[in-house]
Amino acid sequence: MYDSIIIGVGPAGISSGIYTARANLKTLIIGKFSESRLSTKHKIYNYYGFVNGIQANKLLNDGIKQARKLGAEIEEGEVINIKKVRNEFEVKDSKNKKYKTKTVIIASGSKIEKLGVKNENELTNRGVHYCSLCDGPLYSNGKITVIGNGNHAAEEAIELRAYTKNLTMISHENKFSISKELMKELEKRKIIMINDKAIEFYGKNKIEKVIMTKGSIECDAVFIANGKTSSISLAKKLGLEIKNNNITTNESETNIKGIFAAGEATGINKQVAICVGEGCKAAIKAIKYIRGKEFYIDYGNK
Amino acid sequence: MYDSIIIGVGPAGISSGIYTARANLKTLIIGKFSESRLSTKHKIYNYYGFVNGIQANKLLNDGIKQARKLGAEIEEGEVINIKKVRNEFEVKDSKNKKYKTKTVIIASGSKIEKLGVKNENELTNRGVHYCSLCDGPLYSNGKITVIGNGNHAAEEAIELRAYTKNLTMISHENKFSISKELMKELEKRKIIMINDKAIEFYGKNKIEKVIMTKGSIECDAVFIANGKTSSISLAKKLGLEIKNNNITTNESETNIKGIFAAGEATGINKQVAICVGEGCKAAIKAIKYIRGKEFYIDYGNK
Repeated sequence: MYDSIIIGVGPAGISSGIYTARANLKTLIIGKFSESRLSTKHKIYNYYGFVNGIQANKLLNDGIKQARKLGAEIEEGEVINIKKVRNEFEVKDSKNKKYKTKTVIIASGSKIEKLGVKNENELTNRGVHYCSLCDGPLYSNGKITVIGNGNHAAEEAIELRAYTKNLTMISHENKFSISKELMKELEKRKIIMINDKAIEFYGKNKIEKVIMTKGSIECDAVFIANGKTSSISLAKKLGLEIKNNNITTNESETNIKGIFAAGEATGINKQVAICVGEGCKAAIKAIKYIRGKEFYIDYGNK
Repeated sequence: MYDSIIIGVGPAGISSGIYTARANLKTLIIGKFSESRLSTKHKIYNYYGFVNGIQANKLLNDGIKQARKLGAEIEEGEVINIKKVRNEFEVKDSKNKKYKTKTVIIASGSKIEKLGVKNENELTNRGVHYCSLCDGPLYSNGKITVIGNGNHAAEEAIELRAYTKNLTMISHENKFSISKELMKELEKRKIIMINDKAIEFYGKNKIEKVIMTKGSIECDAVFIANGKTSSISLAKKLGLEIKNNNITTNESETNIKGIFAAGEATGINKQVAICVGEGCKAAIKAIKYIRGKEFYIDYGNK
């Protein structure tokens, strides 16, 4: 019987595990090492404490080592079901292995919104990006294309407009479907909008242009903001409340006692800093739940 | 004119500054390097990303270097007042230097510091107070003593001078250490300064005198202004909503547009991880505020 099973090995999940393990809770963290959104990033500059930034994969690996060192068990795997059994939970992985636990912290993120366009993987982090706030500053005054037809894409475009005037949106799969408030902001900023589908990212070492069905556009960077496909099937199976494809939480607590959620799964901004903080908060809630304690105690130097 | 002035150089303040600077906002961070709560800690084991933990002072220093590298200006100093001027703010430091800014992020930590003097709790609000602006008017023409040796105490004394001529400062723990600009103001107002330590507040139903190691002084009120200007005293001067000695926030926003708060000042759990996350959130709010993206709520409905 575990005290806490944490689903997800990204910043939110591992930050949770660091806290539960350090509080002497028997902790298991399960996740696919390569599927954190962080693994699609090259280098992180905006996470507090790293003067020159840190390689995304080094941060992921170091986090895992740190949690292990503090006593968490970590397994590479995929959780496919969670069942409530009386006041406890049974967690099943894709190999049909079952684990019992008193609490679960869901921190399994939302899936990366890959487009499936030719050369997308090859040029990721070579001009092809998924987060304006993270990578926008790299393209000051550059030619930027945003791919996506919804409010998320509009939001990214407006964000990126601070770095450059040369900004184009491509709707990709469907026609643009943007709220009139955001539409007004796009028009005010004279952002060009093209109704077409991207079929190839062209470029040798970095992206040079986006080829569409009816034309092409030169660019220094492409930001993909195609809808939002969060993985919430577990939550649905458990009967968790979901809104806009995010698990509904109230200060890390879900509508089921003993189940907590943190990180992108809850719809927060996709920043390492925020995920780490929210992971910590969820863990503190789980610790209090198990101990029936009012206050979190820092369990000294381990 | 700054886009953002951040008060506090601990994890919350610096994390904010990393984000505002990186988003091309003209950013100034002001704080006393040695006064983050983190500086009282030895080593931090539970902050994500450091396999073997990190020395608290190294983390503080590295954060400051990182923010500077990303373009934030950082000044060692103490903010003693913030004023709203139309839609902007004027921030004043202890050297009487004034800065204009579009937004302020208050991340200067917590709490009114109790002195621990005998009868302090018993006589609180019976002549013993912690905020000149709130309670000063009660003692018009009364005998007022201010306890504290720094710029914060000097500022409080100068403010209270508007209500009475009978004003004395007691240094308490250490010798007076006040900027020469504020010193000049104290002298101009003929404020008496006593280098001694308070050991007891004496009085039956309300304070009657302060007993020190080498003497005593009669008074109608004592205002405690020990240590630095707290987030709370700044917040009170600005008219921010306060509850249980914490700045009330709603997703980093205070009740005054353009003023945001993060970290311990808002009463959150004192974990580095949480402060870093909340600092990032406050910065994102400030960035959106400046870019005029207040319809951000819409984007949540995707």
